[in-house]
Amino acid sequence: MIAPERCHCSSRPQTSPSKYNDNAMVINKLTPEESKSILLQATVARLACALDNQPYVVPIYFAYEDGNLYALSTLGQKIEWMRANPKVCVQVDEIQSHEQWASVVVNGRYQELREPQYSEEHAHAKKLLERRHRWWQTAMAERQITSGDHLIAPLLFRIQIDSMTGLRATT
Amino acid sequence: MIAPERCHCSSRPQTSPSKYNDNAMVINKLTPEESKSILLQATVARLACALDNQPYVVPIYFAYEDGNLYALSTLGQKIEWMRANPKVCVQVDEIQSHEQWASVVVNGRYQELREPQYSEEHAHAKKLLERRHRWWQTAMAERQITSGDHLIAPLLFRIQIDSMTGLRATT
Repeated sequence: MIAPERCHCSSRPQTSPSKYNDNAMVINKLTPEESKSILLQATVARLACALDNQPYVVPIYFAYEDGNLYALSTLGQKIEWMRANPKVCVQVDEIQSHEQWASVVVNGRYQELREPQYSEEHAHAKKLLERRHRWWQTAMAERQITSGDHLIAPLLFRIQIDSMTGLRATT
Repeated sequence: MIAPERCHCSSRPQTSPSKYNDNAMVINKLTPEESKSILLQATVARLACALDNQPYVVPIYFAYEDGNLYALSTLGQKIEWMRANPKVCVQVDEIQSHEQWASVVVNGRYQELREPQYSEEHAHAKKLLERRHRWWQTAMAERQITSGDHLIAPLLFRIQIDSMTGLRATT
């Protein structure tokens, strides 16, 4: 799987087999529904933020619903950076092999679900994420390694999706 | 696996089990040698670049050697952005499960291996990447979907690593 960013940002022809190999790989654009389906099934994404034009990318654990990606974190570099600059890019994939994969790239905006302003959204995000395996423990282990604190309120946020493109490679 | 960015940028205690579960997950910092070992074994990374403080993240196929990540691409958004702003961040992981994973985050600078200025490095990068499975075909399929071109010179680049941090989670 190499660098599908050309495809992610292009509106050119949707299918083209390679001419360089008999066992040709074909890359198709995903429909919005197909991209959403990948976001619904995935649990891990790569979240990129930027500050002073320095990008930063880390894996996150997330849940998708209705145009938003919900996630949990404790205070750290990515939260500080996204507070300063809410523009983010999130990449999610399903990789079976180098020739069989799908990738979705999302552009969106960071929104922290602070209480009481976003109490309802905060509760909803927590409920969504609680369905996922061990989310709480993982976030706490992360926090403790860096702070030594024993009681830390998890910080919930969402990425409001502005645009989204998806690709699927098959042979 | 959630958001290990706090750990990636911290010099705090290296090991801390979670207090929130009996089957505690422990996160350890990787030594530079352990991080290099992960880069050497991996073939897929997530490359983040930024322009006007908008981040962009895509998967890339790469090879690590001696402080550099080598990769191949055709002209597209990420190349155009990295030409304009060479600051990049690359994330590589090995994921067995949500409790068993390792992640390496690299900060570095984009350098295009243009000929004739970088002929030697260009040849070396090509050799390194040719050892990898189907790299050529994948890049060409990518290019063709967006351009319809039949003959496209692959563009080789490297990321010169400025700093690197790694984490491993175990139970």
